[in-house]
Amino acid sequence: MPKEFFTVGALLYKDYDLLDVNGSLRMLGSLKANFNIITITQTGEHVTSFTPQIANYINYNFENCPDFDILFIPGGVGTRDELENSVFLDFIKQRVPKVKYVLTVCTGSGLLAKTGLLDGKKATTNKLVWNWMTSFGTNQTKILYLETRLNSKKFALII
Amino acid sequence: MPKEFFTVGALLYKDYDLLDVNGSLRMLGSLKANFNIITITQTGEHVTSFTPQIANYINYNFENCPDFDILFIPGGVGTRDELENSVFLDFIKQRVPKVKYVLTVCTGSGLLAKTGLLDGKKATTNKLVWNWMTSFGTNQTKILYLETRLNSKKFALII
Repeated sequence: MPKEFFTVGALLYKDYDLLDVNGSLRMLGSLKANFNIITITQTGEHVTSFTPQIANYINYNFENCPDFDILFIPGGVGTRDELENSVFLDFIKQRVPKVKYVLTVCTGSGLLAKTGLLDGKKATTNKLVWNWMTSFGTNQTKILYLETRLNSKKFALII
Repeated sequence: MPKEFFTVGALLYKDYDLLDVNGSLRMLGSLKANFNIITITQTGEHVTSFTPQIANYINYNFENCPDFDILFIPGGVGTRDELENSVFLDFIKQRVPKVKYVLTVCTGSGLLAKTGLLDGKKATTNKLVWNWMTSFGTNQTKILYLETRLNSKKFALII
Protein backbone atom coordinates (compact mmCIF):
# COMPACT_ATOMS: atom_id res chain seq x y z
CA MET A 1 0.00 0.00 0.00
CA PRO A 2 1.47 3.36 -0.96
CA LYS A 3 2.10 5.89 1.79
CA GLU A 4 -0.51 8.56 2.34
CA PHE A 5 0.60 11.93 1.01
CA PHE A 6 -0.44 15.31 2.40
CA THR A 7 0.52 18.84 1.50
CA VAL A 8 0.65 21.02 4.61
CA GLY A 9 0.11 24.76 4.35
CA ALA A 10 1.99 26.31 7.31
CA LEU A 11 0.56 29.76 7.97
CA LEU A 12 3.21 31.98 9.56
CA TYR A 13 3.11 35.55 10.83
CA LYS A 14 5.50 38.05 12.46
CA ASP A 15 6.57 36.93 15.97
CA TYR A 16 5.41 33.32 15.62
CA ASP A 17 6.92 30.81 18.01
CA LEU A 18 9.90 29.10 16.38
CA LEU A 19 9.38 25.77 18.15
CA ASP A 20 5.63 25.69 17.50
CA VAL A 21 6.40 25.66 13.80
CA ASN A 22 9.53 23.60 13.48
CA GLY A 23 9.01 21.22 16.39
CA SER A 24 5.53 20.31 15.21
CA LEU A 25 6.48 19.99 11.55
CA ARG A 26 9.53 17.91 12.46
CA MET A 27 7.13 15.55 14.24
CA LEU A 28 5.14 15.16 11.02
CA GLY A 29 8.39 14.20 9.32
CA SER A 30 8.64 11.21 11.67
CA LEU A 31 5.22 9.78 10.83
CA LYS A 32 4.43 7.06 8.31
CA ALA A 33 2.65 9.38 5.90
CA ASN A 34 4.56 11.70 3.58
CA PHE A 35 4.16 15.42 4.16
CA ASN A 36 5.06 18.15 1.70
CA ILE A 37 5.30 21.40 3.63
CA ILE A 38 4.65 24.79 2.07
CA THR A 39 5.12 27.97 4.09
CA ILE A 40 2.83 30.97 3.71
CA THR A 41 2.71 34.56 4.96
CA GLN A 42 0.31 37.32 4.02
CA THR A 43 2.77 39.13 1.72
CA GLY A 44 5.32 36.33 1.23
CA GLU A 45 7.73 38.11 3.57
CA HIS A 46 10.19 35.92 5.48
CA VAL A 47 8.85 37.02 8.87
CA THR A 48 10.94 36.40 11.98
CA SER A 49 9.94 34.42 15.06
CA PHE A 50 9.59 36.19 18.40
CA THR A 51 12.66 35.04 20.28
CA PRO A 52 15.19 34.53 19.02
CA GLN A 53 14.40 36.37 15.83
CA ILE A 54 15.11 33.94 13.04
CA ALA A 55 13.01 33.06 10.04
CA ASN A 56 11.69 30.14 8.10
CA TYR A 57 11.93 30.46 4.34
CA ILE A 58 8.51 31.40 2.96
CA ASN A 59 7.18 29.88 -0.27
CA TYR A 60 3.90 31.72 -0.92
CA ASN A 61 1.75 34.75 -0.14
CA PHE A 62 -2.03 34.77 0.26
CA GLU A 63 -2.56 35.53 -3.45
CA ASN A 64 -0.38 32.90 -5.09
CA CYS A 65 -0.71 30.08 -2.56
CA PRO A 66 -1.93 26.80 -4.11
CA ASP A 67 -4.39 24.39 -2.50
CA PHE A 68 -3.18 22.14 0.30
CA ASP A 69 -4.59 19.28 2.39
CA ILE A 70 -3.77 20.40 5.92
CA LEU A 71 -3.86 23.93 7.29
CA PHE A 72 -1.29 24.41 10.07
CA ILE A 73 -1.55 27.45 12.38
CA PRO A 74 1.20 27.90 15.00
CA GLY A 75 1.06 30.00 18.15
CA GLY A 76 3.26 32.80 19.37
CA VAL A 77 3.31 36.32 20.73
CA GLY A 78 2.36 37.62 17.28
CA THR A 79 -1.08 36.02 17.62
CA ARG A 80 -2.14 39.20 19.37
CA ASP A 81 -1.75 41.30 16.22
CA GLU A 82 -3.22 38.74 13.81
CA LEU A 83 -6.40 38.47 15.90
CA GLU A 84 -7.10 42.02 14.67
CA ASN A 85 -5.99 41.36 11.09
CA SER A 86 -9.08 40.67 8.99
CA VAL A 87 -7.05 39.73 5.91
CA PHE A 88 -5.28 37.03 7.92
CA LEU A 89 -8.50 35.72 9.46
CA ASP A 90 -10.24 35.74 6.08
CA PHE A 91 -7.47 33.57 4.63
CA ILE A 92 -8.19 30.97 7.31
CA LYS A 93 -11.93 31.18 6.69
CA GLN A 94 -11.49 30.73 2.95
CA ARG A 95 -9.09 27.80 3.24
CA VAL A 96 -10.66 25.70 5.99
CA PRO A 97 -13.58 24.47 3.84
CA LYS A 98 -11.09 23.26 1.19
CA VAL A 99 -8.73 21.28 3.46
CA LYS A 100 -8.96 17.81 5.00
CA TYR A 101 -7.54 18.77 8.39
CA VAL A 102 -6.68 21.82 10.44
CA LEU A 103 -3.85 21.69 12.97
CA THR A 104 -3.19 24.47 15.45
CA VAL A 105 -0.52 24.84 18.12
CA CYS A 106 -0.89 26.83 21.35
CA THR A 107 -2.41 30.27 20.70
CA GLY A 108 -2.94 29.37 17.06
CA SER A 109 -6.23 27.96 18.33
CA GLY A 110 -7.34 31.52 19.16
CA LEU A 111 -6.89 32.57 15.55
CA LEU A 112 -9.02 29.65 14.41
CA ALA A 113 -11.64 30.37 17.09
CA LYS A 114 -11.77 34.05 16.12
CA THR A 115 -13.00 33.07 12.65
CA GLY A 116 -16.03 31.41 14.26
CA LEU A 117 -15.16 28.07 12.71
CA LEU A 118 -14.80 26.39 16.11
CA ASP A 119 -18.16 27.61 17.39
CA GLY A 120 -20.15 24.69 18.75
CA LYS A 121 -17.16 22.35 18.55
CA LYS A 122 -15.14 20.84 21.37
CA ALA A 123 -11.67 22.33 21.41
CA THR A 124 -8.75 23.13 23.68
CA THR A 125 -5.90 25.60 23.97
CA ASN A 126 -2.84 26.53 26.02
CA LYS A 127 -3.63 26.61 29.74
CA LEU A 128 -1.28 29.57 30.30
CA VAL A 129 -3.48 31.81 28.18
CA TRP A 130 -6.78 30.02 28.81
CA ASN A 131 -8.96 33.02 29.64
CA TRP A 132 -7.68 35.05 26.72
CA MET A 133 -7.92 32.25 24.18
CA THR A 134 -11.34 30.99 25.20
CA SER A 135 -12.75 34.50 24.78
CA PHE A 136 -12.76 34.03 21.01
CA GLY A 137 -14.96 30.94 20.70
CA THR A 138 -18.07 29.62 22.33
CA ASN A 139 -17.05 26.14 23.37
CA GLN A 140 -13.29 25.71 23.78
CA THR A 141 -13.58 23.42 26.75
CA LYS A 142 -12.23 19.98 25.98
CA ILE A 143 -9.35 18.32 24.25
CA LEU A 144 -10.50 17.83 20.71
CA TYR A 145 -8.48 14.85 19.53
CA LEU A 146 -5.00 13.56 19.14
CA GLU A 147 -2.82 13.00 16.13
CA THR A 148 -3.60 9.27 16.16
CA ARG A 149 -7.21 10.06 15.40
CA LEU A 150 -6.45 12.47 12.58
CA ASN A 151 -8.40 10.39 10.12
CA SER A 152 -11.67 10.69 11.97
CA LYS A 153 -12.06 14.43 12.42
CA LYS A 154 -11.06 17.68 10.85
CA PHE A 155 -9.56 19.79 13.61
CA ALA A 156 -6.59 18.88 15.80
CA LEU A 157 -5.23 21.33 18.34
CA ILE A 158 -1.81 20.80 19.83
CA ILE A 159 -1.65 22.44 23.22
CA MET B 1 23.74 45.11 34.86
CA PRO B 2 23.11 44.97 31.10
CA LYS B 3 22.26 41.64 29.57
CA GLU B 4 25.04 39.74 27.88
CA PHE B 5 24.78 39.86 24.11
CA PHE B 6 25.96 37.18 21.72
CA THR B 7 25.76 36.82 17.97
CA VAL B 8 25.29 33.18 17.00
CA GLY B 9 26.42 31.94 13.60
CA ALA B 10 24.21 28.95 12.78
CA LEU B 11 25.96 26.83 10.16
CA LEU B 12 23.39 24.95 8.08
CA TYR B 13 23.75 22.44 5.25
CA LYS B 14 21.46 20.40 2.99
CA ASP B 15 19.50 17.76 4.96
CA TYR B 16 20.12 19.26 8.40
CA ASP B 17 17.76 18.23 11.17
CA LEU B 18 15.00 20.81 11.53
CA LEU B 19 14.61 20.34 15.28
CA ASP B 20 18.36 20.40 15.96
CA VAL B 21 18.43 23.92 14.59
CA ASN B 22 15.15 25.46 15.67
CA GLY B 23 14.65 23.61 18.95
CA SER B 24 18.13 24.49 20.14
CA LEU B 25 17.98 28.11 18.99
CA ARG B 26 14.54 28.52 20.54
CA MET B 27 16.09 27.41 23.81
CA LEU B 28 18.67 30.20 23.53
CA GLY B 29 15.75 32.61 23.13
CA SER B 30 14.55 31.60 26.59
CA LEU B 31 17.82 32.39 28.37
CA LYS B 32 18.73 35.60 30.18
CA ALA B 33 21.33 36.67 27.64
CA ASN B 34 20.33 38.20 24.31
CA PHE B 35 21.15 36.24 21.19
CA ASN B 36 21.24 37.60 17.67
CA ILE B 37 21.08 34.64 15.30
CA ILE B 38 22.56 34.70 11.81
CA THR B 39 22.16 31.74 9.47
CA ILE B 40 24.89 30.63 7.11
CA THR B 41 25.27 28.13 4.28
CA GLN B 42 28.21 27.59 1.96
CA THR B 43 26.62 29.41 -0.99
CA GLY B 44 23.85 31.28 0.84
CA GLU B 45 21.29 28.82 -0.55
CA HIS B 46 18.15 28.28 1.57
CA VAL B 47 18.87 24.58 1.99
CA THR B 48 16.08 22.27 3.13
CA SER B 49 16.05 20.03 6.19
CA PHE B 50 15.93 16.24 5.78
CA THR B 51 12.38 15.43 6.81
CA PRO B 52 10.13 17.15 6.29
CA GLN B 53 11.88 19.28 3.70
CA ILE B 54 11.45 22.84 4.84
CA ALA B 55 14.00 25.61 5.09
CA ASN B 56 15.26 28.27 7.41
CA TYR B 57 15.90 31.61 5.80
CA ILE B 58 19.65 32.02 5.22
CA ASN B 59 21.42 35.34 5.81
CA TYR B 60 24.99 34.75 4.63
CA ASN B 61 27.34 32.59 2.60
CA PHE B 62 30.91 31.64 3.53
CA GLU B 63 32.34 34.67 1.70
CA ASN B 64 30.21 37.50 3.09
CA CYS B 65 29.55 36.16 6.59
CA PRO B 66 30.56 38.63 9.34
CA ASP B 67 32.22 37.68 12.63
CA PHE B 68 30.09 36.13 15.38
CA ASP B 69 30.57 35.08 19.01
CA ILE B 70 29.16 31.55 18.99
CA LEU B 71 29.48 28.96 16.25
CA PHE B 72 26.46 26.64 16.18
CA ILE B 73 26.66 23.35 14.23
CA PRO B 74 23.50 21.20 14.09
CA GLY B 75 23.26 17.52 13.23
CA GLY B 76 21.30 15.69 10.60
CA VAL B 77 21.47 13.14 7.81
CA GLY B 78 23.35 15.67 5.70
CA THR B 79 26.35 15.44 8.02
CA ARG B 80 27.47 12.50 5.94
CA ASP B 81 28.10 14.64 2.87
CA GLU B 82 29.65 17.58 4.72
CA LEU B 83 32.21 15.30 6.37
CA GLU B 84 33.68 14.98 2.87
CA ASN B 85 33.31 18.69 2.03
CA SER B 86 36.66 20.37 2.63
CA VAL B 87 35.24 23.86 2.00
CA PHE B 88 32.69 23.30 4.75
CA LEU B 89 35.25 21.89 7.19
CA ASP B 90 37.68 24.71 6.42
CA PHE B 91 35.01 27.27 7.30
CA ILE B 92 34.71 25.67 10.75
CA LYS B 93 38.49 25.59 11.17
CA GLN B 94 38.82 29.26 10.23
CA ARG B 95 36.01 30.44 12.49
CA VAL B 96 36.59 28.47 15.68
CA PRO B 97 39.69 30.46 16.72
CA LYS B 98 37.69 33.69 16.39
CA VAL B 99 34.62 32.72 18.45
CA LYS B 100 33.99 32.56 22.20
CA TYR B 101 32.00 29.32 22.15
CA VAL B 102 31.19 26.43 19.85
CA LEU B 103 27.88 24.60 20.20
CA THR B 104 27.13 21.40 18.34
CA VAL B 105 24.01 19.22 18.31
CA CYS B 106 23.96 15.47 17.66
CA THR B 107 26.08 14.55 14.62
CA GLY B 108 27.25 18.14 14.36
CA SER B 109 29.93 17.01 16.79
CA GLY B 110 31.35 14.76 14.07
CA LEU B 111 31.88 17.73 11.78
CA LEU B 112 33.75 19.55 14.53
CA ALA B 113 35.77 16.43 15.35
CA LYS B 114 36.67 15.91 11.69
CA THR B 115 38.48 19.26 11.70
CA GLY B 116 40.79 17.97 14.42
CA LEU B 117 39.77 20.76 16.78
CA LEU B 118 38.42 18.33 19.39
CA ASP B 119 41.57 16.20 19.45
CA GLY B 120 42.72 15.74 23.01
CA LYS B 121 39.54 17.24 24.44
CA LYS B 122 36.74 15.54 26.30
CA ALA B 123 33.61 15.47 24.16
CA THR B 124 30.44 13.54 23.58
CA THR B 125 28.01 12.77 20.77
CA ASN B 126 24.75 11.01 19.93
CA LYS B 127 24.74 7.43 21.27
CA LEU B 128 22.79 6.19 18.26
CA VAL B 129 25.73 6.95 15.99
CA TRP B 130 28.49 6.56 18.56
CA ASN B 131 30.87 4.38 16.59
CA TRP B 132 30.58 6.48 13.48
CA MET B 133 30.94 9.81 15.22
CA THR B 134 33.80 8.84 17.49
CA SER B 135 35.81 7.69 14.47
CA PHE B 136 36.57 11.32 13.64
CA GLY B 137 38.28 12.39 16.85
CA THR B 138 40.73 10.92 19.29
CA ASN B 139 39.00 11.40 22.62
CA GLN B 140 35.24 11.76 22.33
CA THR B 141 34.48 9.89 25.48
CA LYS B 142 32.82 12.09 28.05
CA ILE B 143 30.17 14.75 28.34
CA LEU B 144 32.02 18.00 27.91
CA TYR B 145 29.87 20.48 29.80
CA LEU B 146 26.42 21.90 30.07
CA GLU B 147 24.93 25.24 29.11
CA THR B 148 25.14 26.44 32.71
CA ARG B 149 28.90 26.28 32.51
CA LEU B 150 29.16 28.04 29.18
CA ASN B 151 31.28 30.78 30.66
CA SER B 152 34.05 28.47 31.70
CA LYS B 153 34.85 26.60 28.52
CA LYS B 154 34.70 26.97 24.78
CA PHE B 155 32.95 23.88 23.45
CA ALA B 156 29.46 22.67 24.37
CA LEU B 157 27.95 19.65 22.67
CA ILE B 158 24.23 19.00 22.90
CA ILE B 159 23.55 15.32 22.52
